Amino acid sequence: MSPSASGKLVVVGTGLIGGSFALALKGAGKVDSVVGVGRGRDNLDQALRLGVADRTYTRDEDWTAELGDAALVLLATPVGEMPALFAAIAPHLGSGTVVSDAGSTKRDVVAAARAALGSAFSRFVPAHPIAGSERSGAAAASATLFRGRQVVLTPLPETDPAAVERVRASWTQCGAIVTLLTAERHDALLSAVSHLPHLLAFALIGELASRPDAADYWRVAGNGLRDFTRLAGSHPHMWRDICIANAARLRADLAAYRRELERIDAMLARGDGTALSALFQRAGAARAALLSGRRGGGDVE
Amino acid sequence: MSPSASGKLVVVGTGLIGGSFALALKGAGKVDSVVGVGRGRDNLDQALRLGVADRTYTRDEDWTAELGDAALVLLATPVGEMPALFAAIAPHLGSGTVVSDAGSTKRDVVAAARAALGSAFSRFVPAHPIAGSERSGAAAASATLFRGRQVVLTPLPETDPAAVERVRASWTQCGAIVTLLTAERHDALLSAVSHLPHLLAFALIGELASRPDAADYWRVAGNGLRDFTRLAGSHPHMWRDICIANAARLRADLAAYRRELERIDAMLARGDGTALSALFQRAGAARAALLSGRRGGGDVE
Repeated sequence: MSPSASGKLVVVGTGLIGGSFALALKGAGKVDSVVGVGRGRDNLDQALRLGVADRTYTRDEDWTAELGDAALVLLATPVGEMPALFAAIAPHLGSGTVVSDAGSTKRDVVAAARAALGSAFSRFVPAHPIAGSERSGAAAASATLFRGRQVVLTPLPETDPAAVERVRASWTQCGAIVTLLTAERHDALLSAVSHLPHLLAFALIGELASRPDAADYWRVAGNGLRDFTRLAGSHPHMWRDICIANAARLRADLAAYRRELERIDAMLARGDGTALSALFQRAGAARAALLSGRRGGGDVE
Repeated sequence: MSPSASGKLVVVGTGLIGGSFALALKGAGKVDSVVGVGRGRDNLDQALRLGVADRTYTRDEDWTAELGDAALVLLATPVGEMPALFAAIAPHLGSGTVVSDAGSTKRDVVAAARAALGSAFSRFVPAHPIAGSERSGAAAASATLFRGRQVVLTPLPETDPAAVERVRASWTQCGAIVTLLTAERHDALLSAVSHLPHLLAFALIGELASRPDAADYWRVAGNGLRDFTRLAGSHPHMWRDICIANAARLRADLAAYRRELERIDAMLARGDGTALSALFQRAGAARAALLSGRRGGGDVE
């Protein structure tokens, strides 16, 4: 197996993530052809026009015939669709085809792959490119989306090391920084740094929108609310799937956060400016650590 | 009184907001000279070098002698410092000097002005330019900061209409969109769209920073957490003052938000994807309303 992803790439879900992956590898000359598979014909036609894919199929067409000689299959759909997709591809995969995904949660995707892929499970490399956006669709795809961004791989003890290297090389060719984690650790970290922030943003915008005078609030909103709304503009079904898949961990993080809000409410109730200042300063210092620390790559554990 | 702010401008607090106000009015040829007053000599020297101010004083120097012939005095400090500043300026104001501020809360600033300014209170025009940033200091000042941004004025029944017009004209000359509200309405709206989002961001980053393995979280953080950290990078003392000044309203909004989180936790607990989807879609629709609605100006009530 070559460390490059030369050969045929099949991308299921030619949206922002799948489309950008295809564009980056085509731009680097690392794939011979790209097959795009999607739900809607309109988005697939756009993928063709933009050069994201060379051939396209809707899900109810005979796309699985493309799998036998594919070098790499990337599932880049909401995680809730993956169990059915693993079941659909399993009988048609070639003996050398590597399978990967771009799901935002990993334990549920690994479980679905294990249940459906049979002997091909050893060639499944779970992956999560951390490059979400409130934009979506093939029109939002960009060959540069992943440059300098983190991609987490969560291979299992039984995963073929050559398959891991092939997927790692593909993401490196996209300009990403690849980190290896267990699926459990990935889901725990992402719950706190991504899933919870999205949930908090949806909650804030949703609560304000339910007020009868919401228009007055929007009118005086500045950058504070704008940053929250960017997250709340993310794809509703994708985030429903993420929240359901990672619900246990997310609820634990939400509980810790609600306790923090309770502590802050007590500071406000007693007018404790000293405690508020200390909290705000700790957060500011953490921000500096985050802005410097997130540039690194490598294996967290 | 001319509708322009020609004459001498005294800015107390030559940071991002005060410095940008001075630069914009100087650039528009609407002030003859700018006097900068601040806590630290280093920032004042930078203000001189950058052309923000023509003369500068630290707070313990004899800056109040500059007030008698000033056309406009702008207090652009954290709101907690304003009671002492109103008391300091009151005896020295000229009979035509208009006073304004740039505080993020308005009821407390109005009360402090009323208590200290005496007959000059009718020439005090409470104002809030909604153009915060995680940057601070004269070095961050820009003549274009306020272009297209909202500035809320909260004049009282006893405020001199000519003073309101002078302050309104100054902000319009900066390129801002001026809206008139009562101080009560301002504080209620800003609690929800600015103070609460900042508090939520400080809480999230602070809670994560308190975990022993925080560095692992920062490493995989993407845009979701980045947007939260921008807010949590805001000035700790400024935000302590805002939270204390607007505590009652902020606690009410925080309570509504915590109830929303409780509802969401119940959705997660019962795996209710339909309810989560509905919430996420409502938030997405509200975002669209916000992005279109916030471009307008005028009087909300």
